[in-house]
Amino acid sequence: MAVYTDVSFEDLEALLAGYDIGVPLTFKGIAEGVENSNFYLQTDRGAFILTLYEKRVKRDDLPFFLGLMEHLAAHGLSCPQPVRDKDGRHSTMLKGRAAAILSFLTGISLRRPDAGHCHAAGEALAQLHGAGAGFALTRPNALSVTGWHELAAATMREADAVQAGLGALIGDNLAALEKNWPKGLPSGVIHADLFPDNVLFMGDRVSGVIDFYFACNDMFAYDLAVLLNSWCFENDGAYNITKGKAAIAGYRAQRAMSEAEVSAMPLLMRGAALRFLLTRLYDWLNPDPNALVRPKDPREYSRKLRFHAAVTHAGEYGF
Amino acid sequence: MAVYTDVSFEDLEALLAGYDIGVPLTFKGIAEGVENSNFYLQTDRGAFILTLYEKRVKRDDLPFFLGLMEHLAAHGLSCPQPVRDKDGRHSTMLKGRAAAILSFLTGISLRRPDAGHCHAAGEALAQLHGAGAGFALTRPNALSVTGWHELAAATMREADAVQAGLGALIGDNLAALEKNWPKGLPSGVIHADLFPDNVLFMGDRVSGVIDFYFACNDMFAYDLAVLLNSWCFENDGAYNITKGKAAIAGYRAQRAMSEAEVSAMPLLMRGAALRFLLTRLYDWLNPDPNALVRPKDPREYSRKLRFHAAVTHAGEYGF
Repeated sequence: MAVYTDVSFEDLEALLAGYDIGVPLTFKGIAEGVENSNFYLQTDRGAFILTLYEKRVKRDDLPFFLGLMEHLAAHGLSCPQPVRDKDGRHSTMLKGRAAAILSFLTGISLRRPDAGHCHAAGEALAQLHGAGAGFALTRPNALSVTGWHELAAATMREADAVQAGLGALIGDNLAALEKNWPKGLPSGVIHADLFPDNVLFMGDRVSGVIDFYFACNDMFAYDLAVLLNSWCFENDGAYNITKGKAAIAGYRAQRAMSEAEVSAMPLLMRGAALRFLLTRLYDWLNPDPNALVRPKDPREYSRKLRFHAAVTHAGEYGF
Repeated sequence: MAVYTDVSFEDLEALLAGYDIGVPLTFKGIAEGVENSNFYLQTDRGAFILTLYEKRVKRDDLPFFLGLMEHLAAHGLSCPQPVRDKDGRHSTMLKGRAAAILSFLTGISLRRPDAGHCHAAGEALAQLHGAGAGFALTRPNALSVTGWHELAAATMREADAVQAGLGALIGDNLAALEKNWPKGLPSGVIHADLFPDNVLFMGDRVSGVIDFYFACNDMFAYDLAVLLNSWCFENDGAYNITKGKAAIAGYRAQRAMSEAEVSAMPLLMRGAALRFLLTRLYDWLNPDPNALVRPKDPREYSRKLRFHAAVTHAGEYGF
């Protein structure tokens, strides 16, 4: 939850002079988003989100993120659409930060999705993978194997202080994943962070997918592994295969998976768990004194990583 | 800006089962409110604010605050209205906190109100004073002379570290105010915190008055002094008499002021400045480690207090 940069009504008025979206009626800082400052804006023409990009989102990546949302929306995915200003630009500057106005999506994210929600999320992910085809820009996945290496090195010394044996768990898995990380699987634009927070529902139907600020080019099946990791474990650490089967069925109803993709799932699940373990561990060890959110517990993902390391066949996930 | 207590969609669903306000479509933590956790809630029946009362608001005071909003709205003031639950109650419990659902008011608060806005705010304050008549409950002003005494004692030792001479400034003014504090002026329900943040505008028109959590029974003219202190000074510390005259004219257009009230204004202005100086100084010296807002600079009000201490006649404010 966060508003790191204060935006007054007067700042907003000056900003809106550059857009053609009507007169502001409501303007409120939103207590969400770890990376950015977000504001809910209602005008006589509709509802919007104003985002100010703080340090973590690189300005150079904005054309990719904003262009991607525009591309996905044009290809049928319900996601926030950047509103172009009067000069046709996706983004502008406000209070020294890059800023963008995006369409606001109605819907609510779930903390405890059921199997039906998992099915719908799987479908939405496959639709995203289809809708991303033909998008002209590319962005490498900075949080794949090379990135894990850097994070592992940066956290190695203190890992065991967070949890006994954590350093070895990370080292062993990183070594195994580096050696065997799949290559040549179907790839394209992936969301790379499709946690339940980032899928909006109205009742049982997905009303939108949000937060594309980790989107990049990588293997589609890895994106499904991120989803299964974040949607299909219970709070007690157990993998819920009913939810897993539902998410997988939803995904495959919209996009066929090759045999090679399915066989790679145990490795991809380990990789996805290691990715979130490492970024959480890094944030845990290096808390930002200005952050308005508490860092998430890395141990949720060390438990998942241990689980995946013992899986030998994709069938154990519900394939 | 603040969401101190996390409320999941599932918590919300359980809460809404007790109300008759429709199906949730949007639910977002709002980054405002120093005292409470606030959430924007949109359902198919309208827009609402869900407030969870954190430590500072005493549960015993809720019937006063919520009952007052209901009373004021019933008497023509545009302010948030508590939604009663299916059992007819104004408030309920959620996550161990008292909680209330209030109607959401469209409108935007201004950081730099002009004289026209000051006039409109003055009018709204007088309407509030009128609408409060006949409200059955009472609540003493905990932040009047006795409260100032306690805050002065609690901050005395460290005051000069914040600003040279601050201890003496507080001590001298407190002594003078204790001796001469007006008695017997027209009194009733006052807002007691009508800063620009707490008045919503649509264009030049006031669309609503919000945040009644300092409301109490006290002198009406003191409430006007709080308003003049917070609306009519420029950032450079100068009192803007054009804004002052506008706010006073707006107020007097809706409620006649007696000669005694007008003559008391220099003292009331000093008292109001001392009140905000003391609470800000206390919060500055005792920052809440869990707070998600930075404490406000007390020196804004020491400057105002010095200004008022030199005023001898209400005419200097624009009366």
